[in-house]
Amino acid sequence: MKRSIGAKTIVYPTPVFIVGTYDKAGKPDIMAAAWGGISCSNPPCVSISLQKHRYTYENILEREAFTVSIPSEEHVMEADYSGIVSGRNADKFEKAGLTPVKSELVDAPYVGEFPMVLECKLVHKADLGMHVQLNGEIIDVKVDESVLDPDGNPDIKKVKPFLYDPAGRAYYSIGKYLAKAFNVGKEIK
Amino acid sequence: MKRSIGAKTIVYPTPVFIVGTYDKAGKPDIMAAAWGGISCSNPPCVSISLQKHRYTYENILEREAFTVSIPSEEHVMEADYSGIVSGRNADKFEKAGLTPVKSELVDAPYVGEFPMVLECKLVHKADLGMHVQLNGEIIDVKVDESVLDPDGNPDIKKVKPFLYDPAGRAYYSIGKYLAKAFNVGKEIK
Repeated sequence: MKRSIGAKTIVYPTPVFIVGTYDKAGKPDIMAAAWGGISCSNPPCVSISLQKHRYTYENILEREAFTVSIPSEEHVMEADYSGIVSGRNADKFEKAGLTPVKSELVDAPYVGEFPMVLECKLVHKADLGMHVQLNGEIIDVKVDESVLDPDGNPDIKKVKPFLYDPAGRAYYSIGKYLAKAFNVGKEIK
Repeated sequence: MKRSIGAKTIVYPTPVFIVGTYDKAGKPDIMAAAWGGISCSNPPCVSISLQKHRYTYENILEREAFTVSIPSEEHVMEADYSGIVSGRNADKFEKAGLTPVKSELVDAPYVGEFPMVLECKLVHKADLGMHVQLNGEIIDVKVDESVLDPDGNPDIKKVKPFLYDPAGRAYYSIGKYLAKAFNVGKEIK
């Protein structure tokens, strides 16, 4: 039996995207965003939703660029910190002991210590209400060599990303392998 | 040291949204979508990206409604199946042994056996290229009583959702609790 719990923004899983930008003065900033995901395969795009009063929002409109760094479990504290303080009031990279790396492809920095980054150019925005949905074309993905599999793709078990649970307001690791996609369903077909 | 792996649509985690629709004849259909996420807090919105040739895409434009059912681990086979067959050629609910439940709030069905569903009205679409990004306002969320916590919120450990790894093309469970959000970062602040 299902119970109505109202119009809440609860899905599983939601990501922990660490969005990197430069402000007008060139100071690198990061913030955590859980509202987002891949939005198009070609051109490859990733979408993030931000409130208009966010420092990161201003920065993206100004530079038309952002990065999405994917943190690993060991950096859950730094990732969370980036979501509870504004870049208007703090140098979050410095406070968190993280290294801003200047992208050579887009006008935004990424987090050197995190294992993966998507470098993005702003291509579309939609004002949905409290949040504006920003789509960035993924110009390149860069991955630590230590977390690549033999085929040169990131290995989720080495990247050790984590996820956000919006109902319990908590972070969880990735669990066990369940099944091969586009495959296990063939048993029904 | 980071290596460029090209402009790929790889982030962690991506969801496994089971999108429910009715076709013109009133036949209920489902498909799996990994490109999507929450997109706005108020009005509460969820976003899914679909290719224009998808049956589900036609259905959503026609009815201006869809549901997002969240499957649990035990239904990984049915979820995968819904992503590898078109509703043009099959009654996927019947084949997968799932029950279509008519939403009383939006013109779309959801999966009775899955523990959670978001009932959505189409409010915005953006053509990004290969995919069109569709935003639905979340009119209600319904959750199996057996997976609610004492406060009436879904408990991720009872829902047992799973995630899609686009690099390894595989499904993974949710792992261990790591930290409280908007909290663990205070140690840095």
